[in-house]
Amino acid sequence: MTAITGLLAALASGDAEIVDVTAPLSPQTPILQLPPPFANTIPLSLEKVSEFDEDGPFWGWNNIHTGEHTGTHLDAPKHWATGRDGHSVDTIAPSRLIGPAVVLDFSAEATADPDFLLEPAHLDGYVAEHGPLQEGAWLLFRTGWSSRGADPVAFTNADENGPHSPGVSAAGAQWLAASGISGFGVETVGIDAGQAGGMQPPFPVHHHLLGADKYGLTQLQNLDRLPRTGALLVAAPLPIVGGTGSPARAFAIVPA
Amino acid sequence: MTAITGLLAALASGDAEIVDVTAPLSPQTPILQLPPPFANTIPLSLEKVSEFDEDGPFWGWNNIHTGEHTGTHLDAPKHWATGRDGHSVDTIAPSRLIGPAVVLDFSAEATADPDFLLEPAHLDGYVAEHGPLQEGAWLLFRTGWSSRGADPVAFTNADENGPHSPGVSAAGAQWLAASGISGFGVETVGIDAGQAGGMQPPFPVHHHLLGADKYGLTQLQNLDRLPRTGALLVAAPLPIVGGTGSPARAFAIVPA
Repeated sequence: MTAITGLLAALASGDAEIVDVTAPLSPQTPILQLPPPFANTIPLSLEKVSEFDEDGPFWGWNNIHTGEHTGTHLDAPKHWATGRDGHSVDTIAPSRLIGPAVVLDFSAEATADPDFLLEPAHLDGYVAEHGPLQEGAWLLFRTGWSSRGADPVAFTNADENGPHSPGVSAAGAQWLAASGISGFGVETVGIDAGQAGGMQPPFPVHHHLLGADKYGLTQLQNLDRLPRTGALLVAAPLPIVGGTGSPARAFAIVPA
Repeated sequence: MTAITGLLAALASGDAEIVDVTAPLSPQTPILQLPPPFANTIPLSLEKVSEFDEDGPFWGWNNIHTGEHTGTHLDAPKHWATGRDGHSVDTIAPSRLIGPAVVLDFSAEATADPDFLLEPAHLDGYVAEHGPLQEGAWLLFRTGWSSRGADPVAFTNADENGPHSPGVSAAGAQWLAASGISGFGVETVGIDAGQAGGMQPPFPVHHHLLGADKYGLTQLQNLDRLPRTGALLVAAPLPIVGGTGSPARAFAIVPA
């Protein structure tokens, strides 16, 4: 038995199971809303091609209109000024898309303060308690935010000062960019905090991580079903040639 | 060590590796071309939202226009008349999307005859030699067709009688529908043969498999890098709510 057939046997026996950590993709899927003068992406829509009718008697199918950064999606380095000469979504090595998941649970803090920011002290504290982050890990920032997923207003959580959702400080983003992780996954609409447009640099997680060839993964769900470590994450964006990112499916394989 | 951390260790050590079996997704990606009067899906196109300009100074991103059944994609039961009351792509259980890969190599036959059809005798012969197909397997039909992938004309391979590409006979499709597989993967533009519109029933793989809650996966590449058995397949379509299918990423994890 190889490691591969060992995992297949565990999945067949129920010793391991698959958790879908992807948000459903629909016209109601929350998308980032940038303030003027910036341009925004379109929400998902389906356009009927045929539906068991004269256009296709035995089949139904649709065209898809959406954005590269809609719903659960992967941010490639090319998305950001700091990484624009780096990988587009189709050239990211598969070995960077499948790896160990490490869950940092700050759901209590983010529930108490929607503007909660992950700071170097939190990350240093994690390492002091649990040891270094695994090389090639996907660090998943559990905030409980996905519980707002069915309500776009609650998900955006905006007031006159813009959206309020948890994220990472500029110093925290620098810490992550210097680590050995492959990527950073969040429950929110983007990898940066709601108030990150006003930080220095603006959108520091995008700035630092995409500039360091690390990737972002958004709108994750069901992170409460993952152990702190011991799960395998599969991040599966579409290989759009030259794409700055892509809607993605993401699965975690966890011990039962 | 669990089966999951065992596989992670094998990936880290190089004892296991990831093969990307997905076709790149671009405006040149071959798509099915149905004859009149049937409606066809659109090819992929990207529409710029911003590119480090006044619409977004630090970021570039695009809208995506494509079809549910473009490039490497998954066919859900809802796509076909026989399965239309069954699963849409978002409700397929993840346990059906990750499983053992079984590769049937008929590349020599399909090279000699582009209209080659997999028949029950071929499948019975496989079982007689290697034993039954694993429950929950993804049966991957290796034909070598992906070598035509950069040339849409060669990929479609049409003459005055329509396209010519390998597939499965109606009796072969019934055999597969009665088996324990989760799905059937091909290198061609669709899960049916180029000439399948003239079969009884038309498009028999769609008819029988989608009607039996089994799924299709298309335009796979690099199947020559997979062992006959012993690989794990991940089929990762987007969870489009109510979708009849979706462009998908697909990975195989193989022994090094």
